[in-house]
Amino acid sequence: MPHIQLPQDFPGISAGFNFRPETAKPMRELAHILLHEPSSLTPGERELIATYVSSRNCTTFCALSHGAAATAHLGDAAVVKQVQTDFTRADVSPKLKALLGIAGKVQQDGKLVTSADVDAARREGATDLEIHDTVLIAAAFSMYNRYVDGLGTWQPTDPEMYRQMGRHLAEKGYTEPSIRQPVEVA
Amino acid sequence: MPHIQLPQDFPGISAGFNFRPETAKPMRELAHILLHEPSSLTPGERELIATYVSSRNCTTFCALSHGAAATAHLGDAAVVKQVQTDFTRADVSPKLKALLGIAGKVQQDGKLVTSADVDAARREGATDLEIHDTVLIAAAFSMYNRYVDGLGTWQPTDPEMYRQMGRHLAEKGYTEPSIRQPVEVA
Repeated sequence: MPHIQLPQDFPGISAGFNFRPETAKPMRELAHILLHEPSSLTPGERELIATYVSSRNCTTFCALSHGAAATAHLGDAAVVKQVQTDFTRADVSPKLKALLGIAGKVQQDGKLVTSADVDAARREGATDLEIHDTVLIAAAFSMYNRYVDGLGTWQPTDPEMYRQMGRHLAEKGYTEPSIRQPVEVA
Repeated sequence: MPHIQLPQDFPGISAGFNFRPETAKPMRELAHILLHEPSSLTPGERELIATYVSSRNCTTFCALSHGAAATAHLGDAAVVKQVQTDFTRADVSPKLKALLGIAGKVQQDGKLVTSADVDAARREGATDLEIHDTVLIAAAFSMYNRYVDGLGTWQPTDPEMYRQMGRHLAEKGYTEPSIRQPVEVA
């Protein structure tokens, strides 16, 4: 039950975005740059970082929607599940594992990141820009997750809704809404 | 010591913003809307929320710069200090105290906000938009703080630098940089 009068039947962040379009715009743009625009980290890798942080924050809507976007990019739901449960055993590159380690620390507190963590990522080939973007993806999802949870938004669990959303996000990114009208789910 | 090669002698978030102008733009715009554009919460009240969250996250640069902006708006450094140490005794409105309570919960985890917290804020006159913006300011500073800390940015403590920055932020807001060139501090 949302804490304020959010537009009805809009799930998760789409309710906040429809309530306050002014703040939605820069929030969408930031996600689009971080997750969708060209980068030496693939969109699937960046969606895995977003999914991992959202899972650690136990924010159902974000974990399921970005998990679905990662699945749409990678064509592999098992690796997404494995990153959420124990990324050290996931079939991802050593570089992404090192970056996920940094993201997990930022999710708790940015001050936990050490130069040893960053050196380890560099040894696996991570660039400064990739390290920067990993820190910022983890920081940004610390915002999106708190926004979705702090408003008490409706967070359905219907997998089909998230599959559709994930395909839309993987194809179009974040500047145009993936949910334009109220949603009915099973 | 920054974890990556950030532009030298730019303190705090200005180092990250100069490193990656693409992501700086929406991050600046979001802060400008939340803290500076017209709202039924005064800019001073909104800067107090930002300062409170940044203090709880122990992010020196953000706590000092937004504390200085709040001081510039309110003309009262004592109330800023009191909000950082124990807001329940601060000389601020009962409505702002109720909103700071919500912000403190979002800083920890958005799921901690209860309908009782929100009802208490409403009883003190808070509107849905004010509650929304409080949640989002707290969520956004969960991002800004982690970004500043996670990059290992230089966070000086020279009060004069922050006084100047606070005056600039209070007057101009966040869309144009308050720090345009490397800084020398005592």
